[in-house]
Amino acid sequence: MARPIITLTTDYGTSDNYVGVMRGVILNINPEATIVDISHSVLAHDILDGALTIGQAHKYFPPRTIHLVVVDPGVGTARRPILVAGDTHYFVAPDNGVLSAVYDQSESIHAWHVTAEHYFLNPISATFHGRDIFAPTAAWLSKTWQTASFGEEIEDYVRFAIPKPKASGNTIKCLVLRVDHFGNLVTNLRPEDAPALFAPEAKFTIRVGTGVVQKIVATFAEGAAGEAVGMIGSTGYLEISVNKGNAARALGVARGSEVTVELG
Amino acid sequence: MARPIITLTTDYGTSDNYVGVMRGVILNINPEATIVDISHSVLAHDILDGALTIGQAHKYFPPRTIHLVVVDPGVGTARRPILVAGDTHYFVAPDNGVLSAVYDQSESIHAWHVTAEHYFLNPISATFHGRDIFAPTAAWLSKTWQTASFGEEIEDYVRFAIPKPKASGNTIKCLVLRVDHFGNLVTNLRPEDAPALFAPEAKFTIRVGTGVVQKIVATFAEGAAGEAVGMIGSTGYLEISVNKGNAARALGVARGSEVTVELG
Amino acid sequence: MARPIITLTTDYGTSDNYVGVMRGVILNINPEATIVDISHSVLAHDILDGALTIGQAHKYFPPRTIHLVVVDPGVGTARRPILVAGDTHYFVAPDNGVLSAVYDQSESIHAWHVTAEHYFLNPISATFHGRDIFAPTAAWLSKTWQTASFGEEIEDYVRFAIPKPKASGNTIKCLVLRVDHFGNLVTNLRPEDAPALFAPEAKFTIRVGTGVVQKIVATFAEGAAGEAVGMIGSTGYLEISVNKGNAARALGVARGSEVTVELG
Repeated sequence: MARPIITLTTDYGTSDNYVGVMRGVILNINPEATIVDISHSVLAHDILDGALTIGQAHKYFPPRTIHLVVVDPGVGTARRPILVAGDTHYFVAPDNGVLSAVYDQSESIHAWHVTAEHYFLNPISATFHGRDIFAPTAAWLSKTWQTASFGEEIEDYVRFAIPKPKASGNTIKCLVLRVDHFGNLVTNLRPEDAPALFAPEAKFTIRVGTGVVQKIVATFAEGAAGEAVGMIGSTGYLEISVNKGNAARALGVARGSEVTVELG
Repeated sequence: MARPIITLTTDYGTSDNYVGVMRGVILNINPEATIVDISHSVLAHDILDGALTIGQAHKYFPPRTIHLVVVDPGVGTARRPILVAGDTHYFVAPDNGVLSAVYDQSESIHAWHVTAEHYFLNPISATFHGRDIFAPTAAWLSKTWQTASFGEEIEDYVRFAIPKPKASGNTIKCLVLRVDHFGNLVTNLRPEDAPALFAPEAKFTIRVGTGVVQKIVATFAEGAAGEAVGMIGSTGYLEISVNKGNAARALGVARGSEVTVELG
Repeated sequence: MARPIITLTTDYGTSDNYVGVMRGVILNINPEATIVDISHSVLAHDILDGALTIGQAHKYFPPRTIHLVVVDPGVGTARRPILVAGDTHYFVAPDNGVLSAVYDQSESIHAWHVTAEHYFLNPISATFHGRDIFAPTAAWLSKTWQTASFGEEIEDYVRFAIPKPKASGNTIKCLVLRVDHFGNLVTNLRPEDAPALFAPEAKFTIRVGTGVVQKIVATFAEGAAGEAVGMIGSTGYLEISVNKGNAARALGVARGSEVTVELG
């Protein structure tokens, strides 16, 4: 059988040894696990950003992958650690909604409140449950695959709605969900939210920051150098890019900025 | 038998291919090795920071893990490469004290001066012993486990004292050893250095940067938003945090800053 | 047989989940692959920087390693995806010259235009061929090793010349190819380009940024603190360093800056 895969998605960054310590905890419990980083650059304490990060990435991994997701501003409080079985993957995370985008994409969800302390590190710190609770839970799951041994099944897991675009007449207001490494602006607008925008010969104006976009293109290379253009990005959302440039810098835009689409 | 684990702790950062090259050297010698990053963000040339990084992290890994630690401002000079067997782990590092915190935690230490050049890359550069000496040594050790084959055993390995808090009357002076990714200030004060500080109803004032701390809490979530609080952090040291904020920025504090605890 | 090794060299950075997604795609196709990062900090869209990064690093890996190299400013355009078999390694990359330094070091090169769409993810995005084309190609190659199954062999792969120093009388003009994590300036001058510079008792002046270098040393530790010195770096090129300092900051130098060597 293939070695179990445990992925890591956190807001821990890479300037400390926190992630390294989690890797050690996992390998100490299950030296056969293959540990794979999805991202440690979730914005600090930002549960929505964490939800989007794992929501987009998890489905590319093989069935039975265990995804460890630690964005946990409530660490040490009463928020529950949970273990979740989706359609084909497992997730270990705080019960704060960070799996909301996963829930949205799953037909079947089973969730357990992780309470089996004999799996945890001892003592349990108040501030680093990634090390003391979440990593051990994922590692033990990768050995036993006995989800029910970790605690009671629950149905009231926390779930929030990913922000959707709002249409009013010919105007659609959406948001920059993320600025990526290249400065591309990933919005929360999908083609089905505004089919007219992506029709041939569509007339529209998109306003974002100091920029005006009047062209939807298929690839980064289209558009004049320095021109701001829209395209359907690799995650299926409208992205605003600047050809051979950094759209976030060029247009003065950051995560959370409003994007206004005017049709016609 | 489980695959051998080699961890990497360096100050090489991740903007170059230096760490990637070390991984290649290890896998070329032992393709069965599992390579795990602890941190590549040790402060450049900072042996104390390296000592703390590996000192805290190594113990979470399985027995027989080989820890490669390269913080090496004296690369190319006469400082010795060493191989160390602690209680249950192995270490490969320059002999400049970067393993001091490991020594502090070990009951038994055996150290060898690594001189067996047939294990090294050839030619040996003057500036990248991580690639040419340390990585090959760790990789060959993971195949042979013959510590004595690498050179003569030594007892005079370099060791320095991790800075300790200094008490004078009711005042204890300590230091910020590290600012973490979240802006938390990790000090060098342990509960046993100031038991009165952590007693119920303790009266005290902690001064650090522009801040005054008068509350010890159990979790990040306690304390009003923006309030600076103290807590025992995940590594067992006093940490200063700002609830929903970045303590380093809020209090104008950097690594090395003085922290003054006044009791009573 | 040892597990297949797939290395990753990209300009994707680590602030997104792009690299994590590629890892998932690879493991979904071949869960036995060992994935190793060489660098994700190639300068954005900088094909020369990518060529140097993989050109220096690949040779340290074991034979049969598959190197996935994605620096792809033309993603979505007609530039071809290629699969390359060098002397002992494989490469998967866009055909934009990013393998030029590899070609320079190889006696034998075979290249295939990757067109076998049944290996690709479906649908293929216009902007993320790292996920949809290159990662699947590398992963399938690591299972089948059938290079010819990916498309037609080609001979007109794109190749550019790595910039060389230019000599004129006693003056040699070279370039800073890279500023590393420590601020060292890696130039494009090799000892064979200026043997007189490295001769004993050589007389010379090197000008770079605001600095003047008049000493060639063997190790970082030589030279007075703060003094700018030259040395043959670990990749075989002249490097300019400042002892216990950051040469790039001290001399006001960035990548691409001119370096002038005056002999005599």
